[in-house]
Parts: sequence; C-alpha cells; structure tokens
Amino acid sequence: MAGSTFGTNFTITTWGESHGKGLGVVVDGCPAGLPISEEIIQTYLNRRKPGGIKYSTPRKEADKVQILSGTMDGLTTGTPISMVVMNETQRSKDYSEIASYYRPGHADYTFDAKYGFRDYRGGGRSSGRETIGRVAGGAIAIEILKTLGIQVSAYTYSIGDIEINYNRCQKENILESPVYMPDPEASLKAAKYLDDQIRNQDSVGGIVECVVTGMPAGIGEPVFDKLDAQLGKAIMSIGAVKGFEIGSGFMASKMNGSANNDAFFMNEDHEIEKMSNNAGGVLGGISDGSKLILRAAFKPTPSIARTQETVNKDGENISINIKGRHDPIIVPRAVVVVEAMTATTILDLLIANMSSRMDYLKDFYMK
Amino acid sequence: MAGSTFGTNFTITTWGESHGKGLGVVVDGCPAGLPISEEIIQTYLNRRKPGGIKYSTPRKEADKVQILSGTMDGLTTGTPISMVVMNETQRSKDYSEIASYYRPGHADYTFDAKYGFRDYRGGGRSSGRETIGRVAGGAIAIEILKTLGIQVSAYTYSIGDIEINYNRCQKENILESPVYMPDPEASLKAAKYLDDQIRNQDSVGGIVECVVTGMPAGIGEPVFDKLDAQLGKAIMSIGAVKGFEIGSGFMASKMNGSANNDAFFMNEDHEIEKMSNNAGGVLGGISDGSKLILRAAFKPTPSIARTQETVNKDGENISINIKGRHDPIIVPRAVVVVEAMTATTILDLLIANMSSRMDYLKDFYMK
Amino acid sequence: MAGSTFGTNFTITTWGESHGKGLGVVVDGCPAGLPISEEIIQTYLNRRKPGGIKYSTPRKEADKVQILSGTMDGLTTGTPISMVVMNETQRSKDYSEIASYYRPGHADYTFDAKYGFRDYRGGGRSSGRETIGRVAGGAIAIEILKTLGIQVSAYTYSIGDIEINYNRCQKENILESPVYMPDPEASLKAAKYLDDQIRNQDSVGGIVECVVTGMPAGIGEPVFDKLDAQLGKAIMSIGAVKGFEIGSGFMASKMNGSANNDAFFMNEDHEIEKMSNNAGGVLGGISDGSKLILRAAFKPTPSIARTQETVNKDGENISINIKGRHDPIIVPRAVVVVEAMTATTILDLLIANMSSRMDYLKDFYMK
Amino acid sequence: MAGSTFGTNFTITTWGESHGKGLGVVVDGCPAGLPISEEIIQTYLNRRKPGGIKYSTPRKEADKVQILSGTMDGLTTGTPISMVVMNETQRSKDYSEIASYYRPGHADYTFDAKYGFRDYRGGGRSSGRETIGRVAGGAIAIEILKTLGIQVSAYTYSIGDIEINYNRCQKENILESPVYMPDPEASLKAAKYLDDQIRNQDSVGGIVECVVTGMPAGIGEPVFDKLDAQLGKAIMSIGAVKGFEIGSGFMASKMNGSANNDAFFMNEDHEIEKMSNNAGGVLGGISDGSKLILRAAFKPTPSIARTQETVNKDGENISINIKGRHDPIIVPRAVVVVEAMTATTILDLLIANMSSRMDYLKDFYMK
Repeated sequence: MAGSTFGTNFTITTWGESHGKGLGVVVDGCPAGLPISEEIIQTYLNRRKPGGIKYSTPRKEADKVQILSGTMDGLTTGTPISMVVMNETQRSKDYSEIASYYRPGHADYTFDAKYGFRDYRGGGRSSGRETIGRVAGGAIAIEILKTLGIQVSAYTYSIGDIEINYNRCQKENILESPVYMPDPEASLKAAKYLDDQIRNQDSVGGIVECVVTGMPAGIGEPVFDKLDAQLGKAIMSIGAVKGFEIGSGFMASKMNGSANNDAFFMNEDHEIEKMSNNAGGVLGGISDGSKLILRAAFKPTPSIARTQETVNKDGENISINIKGRHDPIIVPRAVVVVEAMTATTILDLLIANMSSRMDYLKDFYMK
Repeated sequence: MAGSTFGTNFTITTWGESHGKGLGVVVDGCPAGLPISEEIIQTYLNRRKPGGIKYSTPRKEADKVQILSGTMDGLTTGTPISMVVMNETQRSKDYSEIASYYRPGHADYTFDAKYGFRDYRGGGRSSGRETIGRVAGGAIAIEILKTLGIQVSAYTYSIGDIEINYNRCQKENILESPVYMPDPEASLKAAKYLDDQIRNQDSVGGIVECVVTGMPAGIGEPVFDKLDAQLGKAIMSIGAVKGFEIGSGFMASKMNGSANNDAFFMNEDHEIEKMSNNAGGVLGGISDGSKLILRAAFKPTPSIARTQETVNKDGENISINIKGRHDPIIVPRAVVVVEAMTATTILDLLIANMSSRMDYLKDFYMK
Repeated sequence: MAGSTFGTNFTITTWGESHGKGLGVVVDGCPAGLPISEEIIQTYLNRRKPGGIKYSTPRKEADKVQILSGTMDGLTTGTPISMVVMNETQRSKDYSEIASYYRPGHADYTFDAKYGFRDYRGGGRSSGRETIGRVAGGAIAIEILKTLGIQVSAYTYSIGDIEINYNRCQKENILESPVYMPDPEASLKAAKYLDDQIRNQDSVGGIVECVVTGMPAGIGEPVFDKLDAQLGKAIMSIGAVKGFEIGSGFMASKMNGSANNDAFFMNEDHEIEKMSNNAGGVLGGISDGSKLILRAAFKPTPSIARTQETVNKDGENISINIKGRHDPIIVPRAVVVVEAMTATTILDLLIANMSSRMDYLKDFYMK
Repeated sequence: MAGSTFGTNFTITTWGESHGKGLGVVVDGCPAGLPISEEIIQTYLNRRKPGGIKYSTPRKEADKVQILSGTMDGLTTGTPISMVVMNETQRSKDYSEIASYYRPGHADYTFDAKYGFRDYRGGGRSSGRETIGRVAGGAIAIEILKTLGIQVSAYTYSIGDIEINYNRCQKENILESPVYMPDPEASLKAAKYLDDQIRNQDSVGGIVECVVTGMPAGIGEPVFDKLDAQLGKAIMSIGAVKGFEIGSGFMASKMNGSANNDAFFMNEDHEIEKMSNNAGGVLGGISDGSKLILRAAFKPTPSIARTQETVNKDGENISINIKGRHDPIIVPRAVVVVEAMTATTILDLLIANMSSRMDYLKDFYMK
C-alpha cells in the first residue's frame, strides 16, 4: 500500500535504512514563503540524538541534514522539499549472527514474514533511525504552526513508575533534563532508575506527553479523519508505541459523566472556554480551542544485554546475547518525534479546514 | 478533506444524520463473489441496537438495512455496495432549546465552530447513529475475514472499575450479557453499577477489548500504515473513544524489557510462536501471527439528566437539563462498532500485503 | 483499488447499476452553507435524459433524485451529501441471451475477465446510467463554482464529420438543439445525419467541447495533479471517451512554437492577458486566468441493430442482433456529464490552492 | 494538495528543480525481491538525454543516478527506494533577466500567480529536468512489468506533419533514429525538417505513441480509476502534453459504430481475440487482453530564439529574445518519459486487480 507517505494536503514521505547510504524525507504540499534552512532543521534533528551520555547509545551520529530542493533564497517555493541525512558509517561489520536469528521484541521476524528477507544491518527500516525523516519533515510543520501561533511541546511524562508532578514542572527544564522531563525531581529519580537498568542489563518503558497551545477551534474532519483519529495513527505509527490517549484518556473509562464532562463558560474576554479539559481539546473529533493534550506509551527498548530465548532461521530454539550497547530507554529521544508527528497531523488538518465553509471560499476567491 | 471515507483498497464511505432521512454506507473495493444479504448485514446492525432494556435508550429503532447495489444473485459483483437504513421517525419535535446551547461533552460547539451552524436534531452527524454505516460496511469486512479463517471478536472489558476476569470468561457469554461481558460475574456487578448510575442521573465509561484470531504474519505497511497505526486511527475515529492500546499497551510503559519482550520458540508443529504476547500480535507494525489484542477506552455518555453548566449561543452562562432518557453507558452498543472498524482495517491491509513480494505478482500473473 | 471515488478534498463516490435498485452518489468535503435542493439537482439530471425524441432511447426514466443527508433548511451542513435515484423499472425481463455472449464494443468481456461474472442486466455498472451519480455530484460542484464566478459550459462540438462553426454559435442555442449544438446550422445537418444512422442501423461518434470562464490563475498542483492531468483523468473516466485534449490539443503537435506560443500583454485593465489561447488556459499544469477549453472524443454507441460477429461464453463464434432501440449517438446526453466532471475537478483543485502560500494560512488563521 | 506523488499501491514521489542541488524520486510500494541496480536505472535515464547532436540541447548532463535506500544485495527489500541525481552545474549564472519577465508558453507566469514567486533558474520545477524522477521511478515499474511478460514500448509517431508509416517500422530502428522514430524514411525527413526549424529559429510539436504487449485482461478499476483514465492523467501530467488518446481516439468521433466496434472471435489457441483494435486494448476502462495503444500530443518547445512579445513583472509590454540554445522539439527525449508513466500506471492497476475476486484472496491466504 505504499505506507511511507503520511498526510493528504501536507505530506511527508520518508525513506532510508539504519545502515544504508542515508535516510530522508520528501515534504510535499508545503506552502510557499516559509523561511527555512538546514540550520533550523538541524536543531530538531539534534534533539533526536543522545540527550545524555548515560542513557543513550554512544554511537557518534552527526546526522547532518541537507536540503536538496524546494527552497530559494531561504524560502520555501511550494515545490517538494527533499531532505537527506547521509549515513557516515556504513561499517562493513559482520552481521552474519544477527541475520541468523530473530531478536525478541524486534521486527526481524515480521519483516521476514512479509518480504521474504530483510535488511538486517542495524535493524534496517525498523531501526529508530527511521525517525530522522519524520523529524526533518515534522520540523517544517512545527515552524509553520509557530507562524500561526500554535506551539507544540512534548516531554517525558513518565519512566517506569516515575511520573512527573505538574506542580514542579517548568517548560525550560525539559531540554536541561537528560531524560527530557520538565520536573527536575522526577528527572533525577528517573536518571538513577536508568542507572539501575543499565546495571541490570535491562531496559524500561515510559510515556511521552504532548501539549499543543494556540489551537483554533474547528480542526478535524469527521467522521474518519477526526483530529484525535489522525493523531492516533500518527503516534501509533512511531516504533515502540503501544498506546495512545487524549485528554482523560483511559482514565475516562472509569469516570462518571458528571465528572468527565467539561462545563462551558464565558471567560472574561467573552470567549467560550471550558472549566476543565478532560476532552483534551477535542470534542466530536474537532478541536474545541482548548489545549490539546495527548500521551504516547512506549514499550521498553527491546535490545537488552541479558541472555534471551529465541529461534534462528534454521528453526532451532537458541539463547542469544545481543552485542553492543543500547539505550536503556527509548522515550527521551522520541520526544521530538512525537512533536514532529503531532505537528504534521495538525497542519494537514488546518489546511483541510480552510474549505469547511462556503464563506471561506468566497472570501478567498471573490476578494 | 472529505473525511467520510476510510481505507485505501477496501473502503467504506459513510453518510447520514441522526434525524435526517437516513444513514448509510458505500462499500468499495469489495472482491467479487462474496455471499452477502440484507439478513446477514442485519444481524450486525441488531447488535448495535439496545442490548438490554435498562442500559440503553428506549427508542425503538428498527434500523432495517437495504442493499441498493453491488450484488447479484446473492453475491457481490465487485462494484460498489450501497446500503441504506432509512430513519423511521423524523419527528417534527421542537429542537429550539437544544439548538440554542452547547451540551457539555458533545460536539455541538465544535461543529458550530467549524461549519458555522449545525444539524442539531438528535446530534446530527455526531450522533451515535453515525455508526450504522460503519457497522453495515464492517459487516462485509468481517464476513470476508471469516472466509479467510480470521475471526474478530470484541466484548466489554470493563465498566467503570469493574473489569472482567479472564478465568471466568467464555465467548458464548458475550451476547447473553446485557452489557456484552464474557464474564457473567462481572456482568452482574456491572449491571447493578449501571442501575446506580441511572438512579444518580449519571453515566460511566468503560473499555472494549477486541481479539483477532487466525491472523497471518506479515500484515501491515511500514512506516505510516502499520497495522497498529491504522487500527489506532480506526478505533480513535469512533465517537467517545479517548484511548487506544495494543498488547501490553500503557502497561508496557512501566515494564522492563526483559519482561515485556516475548521470547520466540518453535512449537510442536514446528512453527514459530511466542511464549507471551505483550506485543498484542504486532511487531514493527506488522502482524506476527499471534492473536491481535487491542483495547478502546470510551468516555462516559455525555448526555446525563443532571443539571449542568454551559453557555448558550447568545454568550450567556446558563444551567441546563437535557431532556429525554439516555444510555448510562456507551460501551455495550459500541462493541460491534469496534469489531467493524477492526475488520475493515485488517481487510484493507490484507489486500495491501498481496503485492509485498515479486513472487506474489509472478504467481498471480504468470500462472 | 476502490475506484468509485473521485477527488481529494471534494469527493464524489458513485454507486449503482443500470437495472439494480437504484443509483447514487455520496458527495463529501462540500463546504457548509451552499443553498441546494432536489429541484436544483434535478435540472442537471434532466439534461442527462433524452434531449430529442429521435436520437435517444425511448425509455421513460423519471430519474427523480432524493437528497438523504448533508443538508438542513436548504443549506449544506458540511457533512456528506447522499443522493439517490431509484430505478423505477426493474423489469423481470429475460436476460439469458445477453448474458450468454459478449457484445462488441461493450465491457461485457472485460467485466467477466476481471470479476469472474457480471451483472448483465442492462449493462450493469458499465451502463450509461452510471453517470447519474456523476451528474448529481457534479451539479453541486457547478453550483459552488457559480457562486465563485466560474461558469462551466459544455456543448456538442461535432457529430461524425459535422463540426460547429464558432461564427454561428450562441450559448442560448445549446439547450434548444436536439443534439446540444450551439450552431443551429450544424445542428440541423447533424439531426439529418443521425436520421441516416438510424435508417442504416448504425451509430456515430462525436466530440464534446467544454469552456470554463472566470477561472482564477494559479489552479492546479504540479507535477502530477496538474489541472490538465486531473481533467484528463476526469474526462477519460467517462464511458465511451477515447480522447482528451486541451487548447490547441492534437493540433499543437503539428504547429510551430512561434505560432503555438501565446504572447502575453497588458490589457486595458492593466491585467496580464494572452493574445491567443492555444494553451487552453493552462500553462505548466496551472490555470493562467484565460478561458479553459477542453475537448472529449466519444466513440459511436456500441449497441447497434446490425448483425455483428462475436463469441459466446461457450467459446463459439456466433452472429448476434442486439434487440431494443438504442441511441444512434452518445454525445448529446454526455454534455452535462462532461460539465459535471470538469466542475468536480476544478473545485477540488480550487480548494487545494487555498494553502499554496504561507500568507494564505496566516490570513486565514491569524485574522 | 501535495501533487508530487503518483499512484496508490505503487507510488512515485518526485522532487527537484532544474538548477537546484539535485532531482530525484522515492518509489514506494515496490515488491521485495526485484533485481535492480544503478546501472539498470541509468540506461533509462540515458534515453532521456540528448538523442542526437542536432536536435537537443548541447548541455552536458551526466545525470548519474544513485540509489540511497530500499535495496540489499541487488534486490529490492520492499521498503522505499530513494534515487537521486545531483545537478553538476549549479552555475552562478545571471538570472536577473529571465526572472524579470514571463516567457510565452512557459509556466513562469502561472507559478508566480500560484506561489507568489518562483525558482526562475532554468525553469525551476517546471523544467524538463523534472522528468528525471519520473524516468528513474518508472524504470522500476518497467522492470517489474518485464518480469511479468509485459513490454512497454514508446516511439516518436510524428513530428509536425511527418508521420511514421507502419509498413516501414521496425522496433530495432527506434534507438538508432536521432528522433526515436521506428520508420527510417520518416526519421530522415523529420531530421531535415528539424534542421529547418533550427534555421528558422523555431520549434515544432509531435506525437509519441506507446504500445504495451502482454497485457492481461481485467486491469483497470471502474468507474474513476479506469485504465484509460489513469493513463490519461499520467500522460497529461507530462509537461508540454496537450492531448491524449487511446485506440482509435479522436478518429472514433468520426466513425460509425459498425466500423469502430471490434468483433470478438475465438483464435486458434481457443482464446478470445478481437478482429481489430479500435478500442486500443481497453473496454469499459478495463484491459481486454489486446495490445494497449495510446498517443500523446506534445506542443512545440516554447523556448525559441525568435523575438517574442510578452510582459515583464513591472507590467510593461516588452519584446524578448530568450538566450541559449534550445531543443527544436521536445518529443524524442519524452519517449522514455511516456514509457515510464505508462508503466507506473499499469503496475499500480495490476496490483489493484489482485484483490478483485474472493477466490484470489482465498488462494493467497488459505493455501
């Protein structure tokens, strides 16, 4: 089905394998006139890179982005924007072992089942490096949203059982935390907990939360391309995500209507507002003008140093030890990926909404 | 963006409002030669109707489906299948009150914000009746999957805090339970709890779980049209769903890799199997041949009898009492909707997978 | 591939067979607030019906359209608009003969080859009645375009060798001509020529020309969804069309650049205009603000009374005489179909263009 | 609308400007296991390059293709294939003149009208170099079709008034002719005629014909994604194409049904065949198993050396002389582009057809 393109009016088409020649993205449907540069895109890609020495792979990945098309004099031209990150180290490493068996929790087996064989070098297309294209493309969406007064901000909400406490959270803390937590106390605890994981040759999961402010009301296309449905797809498509929720999310399943309903009221600017935000900013699949709040549950890194049981391609039960050092957690590096996918989704639906009323078409074409 | 079509190769396009002339669906891309009839579709639609007297609206909705195209002599012909359910009661009721204010938890405000006005009669397009088209269309997908040995089965997993206990569950119990729970003990408890809700003029949320057996490995199209990503969209697009998870889901965020990884082993039929199924049947966005397990979190019914605070269209803060009787819970009637959306998604991806290898094309065209 | 939906932001999804229960269309992505009614749609459908007694089938087809959803108080609501025309005469005719062989020039053989069997009653889905959904859906697009000052007007350009002479053409003549020709002299000649065809038990082809005035410059999405590319698909998808051209079209292949290039100049309103319009209103796949001019070549009606050679389903060579009376020409009734498809295409691209510049998004969302 | 992607199941997404850093394509949905290499792709790209010294631009364009992803050990892996051609000469030429006015017959004006400004360097995205991505992507489609026994072959059918004579045509002649004509006599005449054009500082149009052999019956998805409709879009999307026809095409508009209908008969292999092929291999939008025959009408090269009238960006009427040498004709270099777009279209529909019957799904999944 050609599953490498996301979006309808604003699209990203990503490509590339972990240890191939490079990875990249084609951004299509980008409006003309947006200031953009390799420097701007790079700041986003850098957030994908190891956040702290301990909790991510020691691989040195420069991940320098090049823009090959779609801009002139620092502005987008309306034509497709092709961005590439070349892989610096296509090491002629020995992959024979990893090629011979199926790592638990990885996509080795399913890729073989689907395609008959797989690019086993570094995980191939199912590697976390696949997100490079998402982040580069999503960076453009984030920049457009900013211009429109919409801010997308994600952070680590929890690592294992350690959750942030909103009372201690400051946005400024996020990038300073080695685990991208806005709560310094939780961040410290989490750092220690991750040290334990490394010692235990284990890994752990966590949750990323994403908040979008400045959202206009009216965004989302019922009944299948609802804002929360498209976000659900966007977030679930990120590797290692096992759950998605919006607003009160799974908690809503245990709540009473009288508690979960958000009462409307007129605020002091005589605008409609909600007393609470259990809806997470979406009612009936359409944004209600409140903050958008979503969460993504990530499973633990499947690559762990411990001995694991599995099967090889000869159909034998074997024990394996996956070599190399691996992140004890996926979450921190995925924070910017969640932002990228969220922004891409929202922008696509912002564009879709521009034709929701005859008056909008008349204002545009009859002026 | 024309959000009323779901799918790529097998599509459903739904239409209709709660109190308009009718509701329906156009199913396109249905393979020729499937036995289908209004009777078969009706059995699915009937499950959407009130499951028990107490816990659903007393409205009498015959919801008789008519097939208007796409079949001959009881078989699908490969052309689009149009199905319609006419609304029997387009009561000339007085809607002036409900038209004048925004019900908390409903899409009244967001539809106005998007389209400038709304069809306020019975909720219009954002009514639960919108799912009629989904169920009629999804019924065809379910029938196709059955032919291929794939069974989709959903049920109520929890109502408020009352969860099923797998040890007490039998598939046969589902349709006998007034709340579609496979665990009779939990069902009884839930029934009593819903009685309380009615007395309290309140409502409650719950979780639907869906299990798919007989799934072949290899289904799902990385990186954006992954099986779990498409399911995420499908399920999140159902009204009132606030969360989606697959396999260990949100629990995975608290687990260690050593516990969450499912070890592979060769079973006695010398097939690759997994010791556990935290993955929920999906690795890297592709089915692994295990059972598919997903859950959808539904918020409580937003329409409750209690007095609620809100605003009216004149921008005044008001108190309202929504008239009429309403379901204290959405979940039981949504069970078949979850099945329908799950099946539609899987079928679309089963088709996409048929061209994943050159050998498949050669086998098909060179025979 | 689910080929029954056309468009991206404004879509029509058609369904129905010639002798099934009915035919119809779901229009999705229609902006809210357009005045629409069954009466308005009916005027378009009536133009699809026999234009003159002699040159079209004597079947009485009321083709009364019903709008089942998507409007309230005479205005579109932004939700999908479902329209249905029920077939009045599902005669229990004997189709055994027509089911047994493959009519030359028809889709009997190819439908069997694709789907394994076909709905042979009246041509099934490949009947000309399939265009009912196109016309009903396209009518809405035409109405929207009118609101935006864009007029779509098609007419018969030629029947066999008889072409219109622009010097004698008046738009008012079109609907008065039994063959929808704007040139009364050519119309008279064509009528006589068609009499000959009937006498000869034969049929003839012709060309429909469509002119669009009021087109803004800038419409079309390079490089694949160019205005002329999308129109090419739209027009070629109409049954019996074998050729499509825009502006000087096939003539351009014989012209010199110095003659085919349209010189730009500043007109008296100080707007950019072209001296000539060989481009047909499209340069680089984007409208240039001139009149859009396209032509569709229709083959002769394949159903003729003469004896024809063919094969039957038993693989025998046979001679056949197709019973019933048939139109000696397809063109006149197809005129409104060409308008419908042209308008649908243009509207979809008008919407797409609304996000072509950052300034447009800023104007829309930052006001 | 993000118009840079073509196809549904097998897609090409092209990007790049004439004088930007490079041009390329992402091919998605390519089945795994196809042997492919840069050498194979290069042979197609080389046919896009100047065919003969005299009739094409003297620019030296190495146009070396690199495959950056989607293959391993010389086989496609099922993941997206990214191919890039870097522009060698990004000359810091003075473009100020060409930036200041609108060349007749070019897309300068329409790009400005749409996007507010344009990349004027060498035509930017509307340059003929845009087809590099189409050819690289289409090459893969052609290779897949070959594997399935389907051959796509295009050639120059006419240049100005000079048409090929089928009696003198040999497929082997095509690549030997400086204008890619299979008829040596016509080729000679055309060559002389083009000499005249150069002397006259003029250009001329022509027609490309494309024949596809080995087509199975049953390909095409009614009613909008018919084989001829999708081909119409594919071909019309090529720059400079002003007309498209299939089979008897525009001639059909002047023919009688008795002459245009192709009689079926049982051939000596007891297969259904047609006596003639006015249909061009398509009936009802579905392939009939005969040769597919289509034609594309190209306008003359708009860039000519003669003085031309136009306007500049200051709104003044001016006379211009476009510098540099330009091809007197577009057609020969477009031959391989027509093949590429034809093959891409057919492959996409071949895949779609694999799910047209329940039996096909059963054969695939129940074996």
